[in-house]
Amino acid sequence: MKTLILIAHPEIENSTTQKFFQTSLVNFENITYHPISIPINIEEEQQLLRSNDRIILQFPLFWYSAPALLKTWQDTVLSTSFINRASLKGKELGIVVTTGSAKKDFGAGNPERFTISEILRPYEAMANKAMMSYLPPLPVYQFLYMKPINQQRLLVDYQQYVTNPNFSHFNGQVSWFKKQIQKKITTQDSKNTSTLETILDTISQNQEELDDLRWNLDQIKKDDDN
Amino acid sequence: MKTLILIAHPEIENSTTQKFFQTSLVNFENITYHPISIPINIEEEQQLLRSNDRIILQFPLFWYSAPALLKTWQDTVLSTSFINRASLKGKELGIVVTTGSAKKDFGAGNPERFTISEILRPYEAMANKAMMSYLPPLPVYQFLYMKPINQQRLLVDYQQYVTNPNFSHFNGQVSWFKKQIQKKITTQDSKNTSTLETILDTISQNQEELDDLRWNLDQIKKDDDN
Repeated sequence: MKTLILIAHPEIENSTTQKFFQTSLVNFENITYHPISIPINIEEEQQLLRSNDRIILQFPLFWYSAPALLKTWQDTVLSTSFINRASLKGKELGIVVTTGSAKKDFGAGNPERFTISEILRPYEAMANKAMMSYLPPLPVYQFLYMKPINQQRLLVDYQQYVTNPNFSHFNGQVSWFKKQIQKKITTQDSKNTSTLETILDTISQNQEELDDLRWNLDQIKKDDDN
Repeated sequence: MKTLILIAHPEIENSTTQKFFQTSLVNFENITYHPISIPINIEEEQQLLRSNDRIILQFPLFWYSAPALLKTWQDTVLSTSFINRASLKGKELGIVVTTGSAKKDFGAGNPERFTISEILRPYEAMANKAMMSYLPPLPVYQFLYMKPINQQRLLVDYQQYVTNPNFSHFNGQVSWFKKQIQKKITTQDSKNTSTLETILDTISQNQEELDDLRWNLDQIKKDDDN
């Protein structure tokens, strides 16, 4: 699976969150990390879309949608003729959206009134129109206020959102973790101790995540039985 | 009531629909017709917002939201400090949205999947955040395919959307029609026959609309009684 990450951020160099996301992907292949910039080369952008399977729109939420940069991209790159040729048919559309509001502020009766799902309807409608499969969005609430452990969990969620073909199912998550560990073991240079340590550290972190996921699943099953 | 109409249209000069809307307002006062253009003067735009009571966003639906031009305007003019000073509190936010899709194409199970109300949630959330009162949007479906009689009805709906403080209630519509007729009678130059004819024609058209509205109301009452 090849993934294209389209970032729409007016000050990407100054964004700690965007740097965090980018750094988390350095050891992965088949990812094109592509900040949108003006002027837009329509042909190049359309070719990028054609040559990837999962398209991820990544942006901070400004006035309940992406920054104007993404809308400019949509209005120019996603022409009627491009869409009518079913150029995006069967591809996946994902959204990684960062927001300065807390998770608890969204939804009916809360300050932001609507859920993230509701707010992102225009993108869901776009996926529908383009015959794409709409992935559950990955919202990131108040990243800078997150505890380090939660940032690490988010990192793994994000890595899977970008690289795991089956990230929303437990089995898909398990096989993704196994694959990551095996890949790291087989590709390591045993003479390089510091690299080895990094790898072991990563394996250990992944294993913890796997245990957490199993524990969560057990809890869910217990709750279902009660 | 003072109304500001903010138009976001990349080719406003070539738009028959936008010309239709603009022409329909020539005899009304207290309306500022303001196409958004780049570069945006933030101070001027904020002053325009402050000095009006009803703000109408008018645009064609591109990818289930306004053209990038409006998003650029939102991202720059509606700064956090401007909103936090409650600059828009108590004002009304209306949306006139034109779409190339038919009315029947919107909603669950239909090609566009979501209703216009759902698609416009980001603007509703914005009104909520800015402590504005969100008016029911005025969607205009496939204007160029409309029969002349329906275009005329739309014209009156649009005039009311822009100028009638109470357009969504029947009594508010009746008093608006009366006011329009009276205004035309008192301001006419009786020596000017062609103007007089135009006025009479307009009064007659308005009267028909009023009769239609009364008839519709009777029908609704009858349906309720059954």
